[in-house]
Amino acid sequence: MRRTSKERLAEKIACFGNFGADERGGITRLSLSPAALDACAEFRRRCVDLGLAVRCDDMGNIYAVKQGAEDLPGPAMGSHADSVVNGGNYDGMLGVLAALEVLETMVGDGISTRRPVSAVIWTNEEGVRFPPAMMSSGVLTGKFDKSAVLAVRDSDGVSFGEALSAGGRQGDRAARLSPATCTAYLELHIEQGPVLDESGESVGVVQGVVGMCNYTISVFGQAGHAGSTPMSRRRDALYAAAGIIRRLHDELGRIEGGPVFTCGHIECRPNMHTIIPEEVSFSLDARHRDPDVMRRVVGVIAALPREPDGCRVEYREEWSRKTTLFDPALAAVVKRNADALGYANRFMFSGPGHDAQYVQDMLPAAMIFVPSIGGRSHCPDENTSLDDCRNGADVLLNAVLELADAQ
Amino acid sequence: MRRTSKERLAEKIACFGNFGADERGGITRLSLSPAALDACAEFRRRCVDLGLAVRCDDMGNIYAVKQGAEDLPGPAMGSHADSVVNGGNYDGMLGVLAALEVLETMVGDGISTRRPVSAVIWTNEEGVRFPPAMMSSGVLTGKFDKSAVLAVRDSDGVSFGEALSAGGRQGDRAARLSPATCTAYLELHIEQGPVLDESGESVGVVQGVVGMCNYTISVFGQAGHAGSTPMSRRRDALYAAAGIIRRLHDELGRIEGGPVFTCGHIECRPNMHTIIPEEVSFSLDARHRDPDVMRRVVGVIAALPREPDGCRVEYREEWSRKTTLFDPALAAVVKRNADALGYANRFMFSGPGHDAQYVQDMLPAAMIFVPSIGGRSHCPDENTSLDDCRNGADVLLNAVLELADAQ
Repeated sequence: MRRTSKERLAEKIACFGNFGADERGGITRLSLSPAALDACAEFRRRCVDLGLAVRCDDMGNIYAVKQGAEDLPGPAMGSHADSVVNGGNYDGMLGVLAALEVLETMVGDGISTRRPVSAVIWTNEEGVRFPPAMMSSGVLTGKFDKSAVLAVRDSDGVSFGEALSAGGRQGDRAARLSPATCTAYLELHIEQGPVLDESGESVGVVQGVVGMCNYTISVFGQAGHAGSTPMSRRRDALYAAAGIIRRLHDELGRIEGGPVFTCGHIECRPNMHTIIPEEVSFSLDARHRDPDVMRRVVGVIAALPREPDGCRVEYREEWSRKTTLFDPALAAVVKRNADALGYANRFMFSGPGHDAQYVQDMLPAAMIFVPSIGGRSHCPDENTSLDDCRNGADVLLNAVLELADAQ
Repeated sequence: MRRTSKERLAEKIACFGNFGADERGGITRLSLSPAALDACAEFRRRCVDLGLAVRCDDMGNIYAVKQGAEDLPGPAMGSHADSVVNGGNYDGMLGVLAALEVLETMVGDGISTRRPVSAVIWTNEEGVRFPPAMMSSGVLTGKFDKSAVLAVRDSDGVSFGEALSAGGRQGDRAARLSPATCTAYLELHIEQGPVLDESGESVGVVQGVVGMCNYTISVFGQAGHAGSTPMSRRRDALYAAAGIIRRLHDELGRIEGGPVFTCGHIECRPNMHTIIPEEVSFSLDARHRDPDVMRRVVGVIAALPREPDGCRVEYREEWSRKTTLFDPALAAVVKRNADALGYANRFMFSGPGHDAQYVQDMLPAAMIFVPSIGGRSHCPDENTSLDDCRNGADVLLNAVLELADAQ
């Protein structure tokens, strides 16, 4: 079995952690921002130094290719370089650096393969500056209309298309990842949850991404002065919404199979301490791999009381996605190599979405998770031990080499 | 008994409703804004046309004085001309226009009095643009430090002092309302609640303003990814806050005496639908005339669970005020004249605060409430029937005349 270099990987993680380091101890590297462009430029420079061909497609995705002995399609690996606001140093970037370390190991150890091996950086996975998330892999796989996403504007009024051009990232459509050039896609990513950290396993063999739904639940009451409206006359939208949030948690928590669910966003109008809330809206995000469980989640929402506490309740599905199942044969390759390396591992599903779930629609795809200490992510103390980073990179290296020599 | 003119009052209400009329069908006339300055200028012009002396004090308060036969202190009446954002056409302004109508009636009907009669417009009662509320009456009565409030800045960075100067409203300190020139203060105002509207009474004889307290309650949990954090590991600050809001309402609702209480403002951090809420803060406003009831309210807050649902709870009193009792003899004058006019009326307390409660600290003060249709206020459909407006003005007229001829 081959091994990557712990020292080189440590240097990469430290170096790329400078791109977008913010004053709050975290990483703020929004897509196509100067920090993100600098990080991609550093990736490109390092790949060129390794003698690799580097290209950019029309969605700004960057590819570094190590040629194989034969002119055949080959495996690709990668992740994204953008972050959320005040996020951590591992989400996305670790997968990019592990792919870079794999290529550097192949070059350094003089490993040649039958098929080419590629590393890819996906543009705008987080979707924070330009919604939606996973924008560029979504366009490549037909999820989103290219002209529509090019027109999406950030809070400063800059469109995604303008940001691509300004960043010199509007490349060649012919460079896109496709079945013509690629046989399989592997993405290494932090788990963003506590499962591996608590089990003490180094590697998660990801079989798929759970289905999810996202609803907005709105409660309509009546405004009134806090000092002069008798309690018996009130239709307080926040009081009613609080009851619905508690009821949702309690009832969703009783669903067999255990979906995860979150009310993470709430808006209150007029949101003044002297005015009875007139309208409160909040989000419900629920996820599970089993469609039957998701149907029961929707059933709980549909069964919400429509007129609690004198208020009126409406709900609206904002969007949903079905469970994505990764290629079982490819996941088996990952599992086999993790076992061969002697790294404790388990099959698991991803709760968060990843570019790999879109790629799966056109290519065999799978993911490699590494532990998130304390399950923390999207925050400055997001962290993964260097040993786990290296172990994940080793699994990626050996899996990719197996795929690159496949008949 | 004397009567004001319904037609003249209707014209005033319609005319002054043009100052600050906003695109949402309401009134947005923030203190010292062009709309508020225009309204005050129109008031001044009308008073000058009536042959009255008009002055402005150093806090921008405007006084129109109809001289009496003797050089003695006399009664004053008035209210405020500023509004909240997208508020209604009666809050504050009706008291100003009723005072103006009283003066116009005296001039028109050739009514002379022993003592002078004054009308006053208080600057910045709402405190929306420049907190705190009742700023200028508060400075005159020693509640606030003048230099401190002059330095308060609006969201554009303009200080109250700068706005006073720019509006030509920085007048003479000697013009301030004081016991030297004033024997009593009467303020007509809409009830801002449904009591009079539902009882069918035209007039509320206000005996005082209820005590209140305002708390911020903060709940601290832990952020985590909505898709990858097992439910058993969560410390969801919004779920916990929802439980506390429900508990507060239920327990405060059981307090004998019936305080009114409102959670009107809520903030959630990071407030993203894919992140478990890490911190939620919300306001609690509670009011009642009886100090013992207010003590029981504080007891309920103090007895809140400190670690519900795995989160940590803190609470902080932002401010509070004791119940203000208006001058009983002055309230009796209002009551007697309302009865003499044959207008159905009742003694009542005010939930909202008013400039009159500060004035009460230096002068006998009382208030006259008129019905708010449906109890609505601080919104575009805030409304009071013209008959009720006129009846209230009649009570104000006759009460002021009684005070102006007092020995």
